[in-house]
Amino acid sequence: MKRNKKLKIIPLGGLEQIGMNITAVEYDDSIVVIDCGLSFPEEDMYGVDLVIPDITYLMDNKDKVKGFFITHGHEDHIGAIPYVIQEINVPIYATKLTIGLIDNKLKEHALTNQVKRKVVNYGQSINVGRFRVEFIKTNHSIQDAAALAIYTPVGTLVHTGDFKIDYTPVFGDAIDLPRFGEIGKKGVLALMCDSTNAERPGFTQSEKSVGKVLDNIFAEHPRCRIIVATFASNVDRVQQIINTAYKYGRKVVVEGRSMVNIIEIASNLGYLKIPKNTLVDTDDMKHCPDEQMVLITTGSQGESMAALSRIAYNMHKKISIKEGDLVIFSSSPIPGNEKSVTKIINELYRKGAQVIFQDTHVSGHACQEDIKLIYSLVRPKYCIPVHGEYKHLMAHANICKELGWDEKDIFILQSGDIFELDENEAKVAGRVQVGNIFIDGLGVGDVGNIVLRDRQRLAEDGIIIVVMTMENVTGEIVAGPDIVSRGFVYVRESESLMEEARKVLSGTMDSIRLGHVKDWGKIKAAVKEDLGEFVWKKTKRRPMILPIIMEV
Amino acid sequence: MKRNKKLKIIPLGGLEQIGMNITAVEYDDSIVVIDCGLSFPEEDMYGVDLVIPDITYLMDNKDKVKGFFITHGHEDHIGAIPYVIQEINVPIYATKLTIGLIDNKLKEHALTNQVKRKVVNYGQSINVGRFRVEFIKTNHSIQDAAALAIYTPVGTLVHTGDFKIDYTPVFGDAIDLPRFGEIGKKGVLALMCDSTNAERPGFTQSEKSVGKVLDNIFAEHPRCRIIVATFASNVDRVQQIINTAYKYGRKVVVEGRSMVNIIEIASNLGYLKIPKNTLVDTDDMKHCPDEQMVLITTGSQGESMAALSRIAYNMHKKISIKEGDLVIFSSSPIPGNEKSVTKIINELYRKGAQVIFQDTHVSGHACQEDIKLIYSLVRPKYCIPVHGEYKHLMAHANICKELGWDEKDIFILQSGDIFELDENEAKVAGRVQVGNIFIDGLGVGDVGNIVLRDRQRLAEDGIIIVVMTMENVTGEIVAGPDIVSRGFVYVRESESLMEEARKVLSGTMDSIRLGHVKDWGKIKAAVKEDLGEFVWKKTKRRPMILPIIMEV
Repeated sequence: MKRNKKLKIIPLGGLEQIGMNITAVEYDDSIVVIDCGLSFPEEDMYGVDLVIPDITYLMDNKDKVKGFFITHGHEDHIGAIPYVIQEINVPIYATKLTIGLIDNKLKEHALTNQVKRKVVNYGQSINVGRFRVEFIKTNHSIQDAAALAIYTPVGTLVHTGDFKIDYTPVFGDAIDLPRFGEIGKKGVLALMCDSTNAERPGFTQSEKSVGKVLDNIFAEHPRCRIIVATFASNVDRVQQIINTAYKYGRKVVVEGRSMVNIIEIASNLGYLKIPKNTLVDTDDMKHCPDEQMVLITTGSQGESMAALSRIAYNMHKKISIKEGDLVIFSSSPIPGNEKSVTKIINELYRKGAQVIFQDTHVSGHACQEDIKLIYSLVRPKYCIPVHGEYKHLMAHANICKELGWDEKDIFILQSGDIFELDENEAKVAGRVQVGNIFIDGLGVGDVGNIVLRDRQRLAEDGIIIVVMTMENVTGEIVAGPDIVSRGFVYVRESESLMEEARKVLSGTMDSIRLGHVKDWGKIKAAVKEDLGEFVWKKTKRRPMILPIIMEV
Repeated sequence: MKRNKKLKIIPLGGLEQIGMNITAVEYDDSIVVIDCGLSFPEEDMYGVDLVIPDITYLMDNKDKVKGFFITHGHEDHIGAIPYVIQEINVPIYATKLTIGLIDNKLKEHALTNQVKRKVVNYGQSINVGRFRVEFIKTNHSIQDAAALAIYTPVGTLVHTGDFKIDYTPVFGDAIDLPRFGEIGKKGVLALMCDSTNAERPGFTQSEKSVGKVLDNIFAEHPRCRIIVATFASNVDRVQQIINTAYKYGRKVVVEGRSMVNIIEIASNLGYLKIPKNTLVDTDDMKHCPDEQMVLITTGSQGESMAALSRIAYNMHKKISIKEGDLVIFSSSPIPGNEKSVTKIINELYRKGAQVIFQDTHVSGHACQEDIKLIYSLVRPKYCIPVHGEYKHLMAHANICKELGWDEKDIFILQSGDIFELDENEAKVAGRVQVGNIFIDGLGVGDVGNIVLRDRQRLAEDGIIIVVMTMENVTGEIVAGPDIVSRGFVYVRESESLMEEARKVLSGTMDSIRLGHVKDWGKIKAAVKEDLGEFVWKKTKRRPMILPIIMEV
C-alpha cells in the first residue's frame, strides 16, 4: 500500500488556460479540492457559453473526496460548483462572502437544499480525512479572499489563491503576513503561489489609491453626470465609488444584473455600507439633476450584452448617453477584450461623452516584489507557480531562481500532472484525464469537438444541402436533386452559380444512373465530391455539403 | 454651375474603422483619390477574407476620376487597388517602392498590363484635371512614405498619410520638414493629419533606436539560434536585423511568403542591402551551427498560418523550436491581436525557447509632440484628423485645441461625409454611399449581411434540417419528415432528444393533415415554429431550422 501513501497535487484545470481553477490534493484515502472554477470560451469555441473542467479523476475517486475548499468568490474559482457538485456532493468550505456568492449560484440552479456549505473564519482550521486545512487572510480584488495552509502527514502545503498585498485595504484587514511567517518558520513543503503579475516589476498599489483618483475626478467634474463602469465583484471599488458619490452629494443608480446581485449580497452580509437615501432607482433618475447622479454599471470589459454597451448603443430601455456625460472605466481590459473595450469607448465619444480609461484601476494580483515577500516569509522547499498563462509561470519561476531556489525545486506543472512530493523527492509521476466540458444553453457536454468543428465550417463557408427522393424498389431518383444553401452566397446575386451547380449535379446523377449505383453511401460521396470540387474551383470556398436521400 | 465649383473632401473609408483608407478630393470636373486600402475582417465577419470599400460614388463620377495617389505601400493603403482598378482604370501615382509593391499585387491578379503606374519622386508634382499634387518625403514604418500637397483652385490641402518624424532614419532622408514649412508659409486651407498615436504623449523614437536594442540582445546571446519576428513590410527593421546578424557573424534565413516577397522587391529596387553570402536557404540551415544563425520570420501578430506560428506548433516542414532558441518579437501587437500573440509566446516558452517581446519595437506614427510640430509648420486654416479610431481623432482634435485652433475649424469627419470647404466656410454638406464589400475566396460582394447573419446563427447553434416528400396531386406526405442536424448536438449522445423532436414533428404533421394544409409556406412555418419552440425549451438554443419539401 506504499503507493497510496504518497502526497499528490493534481491540477485538474487552470494551468493551461486562464480560469477553470481546480486542484486536487490527495493522500491515502483523502482528497481535498482547492477551488472549482469555470472559464469563458475562446474565440474558436463557437456558441459555447461556459467551459467547466473534466472531473473524471474525481469521479473515479469519489469516495476519497472530502470537500471543496474555495479561496475566493470569482467565477474562475467558484463557477463550476453548480455542475460539479451534482456529481460529487461533498461539503464546501469558504469564508463568508465567498459562501454568500456560492449560495447565490446554487439558488440559480435550484440546488440550495442539496449542498452542505460551511462558513470558515480566518485562522480557523477544518479537519477532513488525513488533512487539516487552515484559512489565512489575504487581499484581492474581491473581499474575503483566503490562502490555504494544508497540513498533511508529509508536510505543509501553502496555496495563496489569487492575492495581493494591501497594507491599507478599503474593508477589513491587511493580508495576515505574520501567519505566513509563522507557518514558514515551522517549515513548508511546497508553496503554490499566484503568478498573474509575475512579469510586472515592483509592488501592486493599494485599492485605496483608486479612491483618491476617483475623488480627484469627481472634484474636477462637478457639472456632469458621472457613469462608472467596473467589475461587479469588486465590492471595495463599488464602496469607494459610493463613498465618493456621497461626499460630492450625488445619488447612485446601479445598472447590470450581476452588479445589482453582488451589491445586494455584499450589503446583506455587511461587506458594503451604503449611506441612507444614496441609492435610487433607475426610474427615479429623471427626478435628479445630472450633476447629482452617479451611475455604477457592468460592462467595463466591453461585453456586448452588458449595461454599459446597451447604454452606449442606445439599446438600453431607460438610459442613454447625453452630451457631456463623463464615463469612467474603473478597470483595465482583460487580455482579449482590448478591442471590444475600445469599440465602446469610440461609441461613447461619438455620443458626446467624455471618457477616462487610464489610471483608474489597480490590479488584484501580487507583482514581483510582493511575490518575493511571500517566498521570503513562507520559505517552501518546493516552488509551484500557479494562476497564470505559461509565460507568467515562467516569469514566476525566474523570480524563484533570483531568490536562490534551485531549478530542480521549481515545478511548472500542467493540468493533469500527478505531482508527487515528500521531503526527499518531488516529481511528476503520471497523468490523469483532464479537459474542457462545454456548456451551451442547458446542455452540459453535448457539444464536443465534432460539433465545434461543424460549427466552425458552417461559420466559415456555410452549408449546401442536396436533397433527393429515391424510389425504394427501383432505386430510381424520383424527385430532386434540389439544392438549398445557407451562409454560402447570397443566392439572388449568384443565380448563375447555382444554375451551374445544378448542372454539375445532374451530371453526377447521370453517372450514378449509368453505373447502376444504388448504395446511398456511394451516392452521397459522389455528390459531395463533384459539388465540392465545382464550388472550390468557382469560389475557393469549402462549404459543408450535406446530401440527404429520402425514400418513397 | 456654382454647385460644382466647391472643393470637396470625401472620405470613402477609413474613418469609422482601422484600415480601408480611401479619400476623394473633388473640384469641378476633377476627382483625385488618395490611397485605396483594404481592411481585415472583424470577428463577426465570419468567413470573410478581406474588406474593400464600396466605391459607388467613384463609379457614379467615373469620368471625373483622374488618378489614384498612394501615400505608401501598406495594405490599408494599397490593398483594394486590384479590385477597384478593374472598375475605374485610371493612372496610379506613387513613389518607387510603393509602386513596386503595387506592381506585385497587380501581378498576382494578372492585371500588370492593364494599369498605368507612374513613379513619382519627392518634390515632384503631377498635374491632373484641376489639381496639382506634390509628393513630400516623410518617414514611416515602411520606406518611401509620402505626404501629399494638393493644390486646388480654392487653396492648398496637405495630407500627411501615415507618418512619423525620424531625424535619423535607417535608409534615406528624414522627413522634409522645411518643405512642410514652406508650404505652410504660403498658406494651407486644410491639413489632414495622422491620428494613430494622438493619445501618446512625447515624441516617437527613431527606427535606429531598435537597431541598438537588437545589437545588445545579439551581444548578450552569442550561443543560441536567434529568431526575429517582425512586420514583413518594415524593410528598415529587416535591414537592421540583417546588419546585426552580419556584425555578429551570423547567416540569415528568411521565412514567410510576404517576408520573402518584400525582401525580394526591396532588394531589387535598392532599398535593402544584403551583404554577400549572408542569406542562406532554409534547406542549408542544417549545415550552419545554431550560434551562427538568424531566422527572420513573419507571424509577429500571432497569425495562425504565418511561419512563426507554424514553427512554434511544430507544423513547419523544415524548422522547429529547439531548447534554448531565442525568439525576439520586434513588433507590438496590433489592437485585437494581443491574445493570439500571447498564445504563441506561451507555446514558445513551452518548447524551451527564451522570448523577448518588449522594448524591441518603435511605432511608425507621430506622437503628440510630433503632431504639434507638423501643425506648427503647416498652420492650416482647417484641421481634419485622419487615420485612427474615433478616440484617436478626438485626442487629435484636443491637440489642435491646445495649439490654439478654434473648435469650429476642427472637423471630425465620418466615412461618406461630403466636406465642402473654401477660405470662408467649411462644412459637411451631405453624404455619399459608403460601406464594406466583403471578399470571400474568389467572391467579391457575394457575401452580404444576410449571408453573414446566417453564418453567425450557424456558428452559434448549428442547423436542423427537416426534409419531407409530398405527393403533388394529393398533397400527401409520402416520405419523411426526416431530421438531420449539424453543429447542434452530438447526436449519438443526444438520441433521446432527437427522438422527442421526431415526435413533436409527427404531431405537427398530424395537425397539418387534419387541417388539410397544402400550402408549402404554411407547412414550413408550422415546422419551424413547433420544432424551434421544442428545441428552445429543451436546450435554450436556437439552431437554424430549415424545412425542405420535395415533390413527387
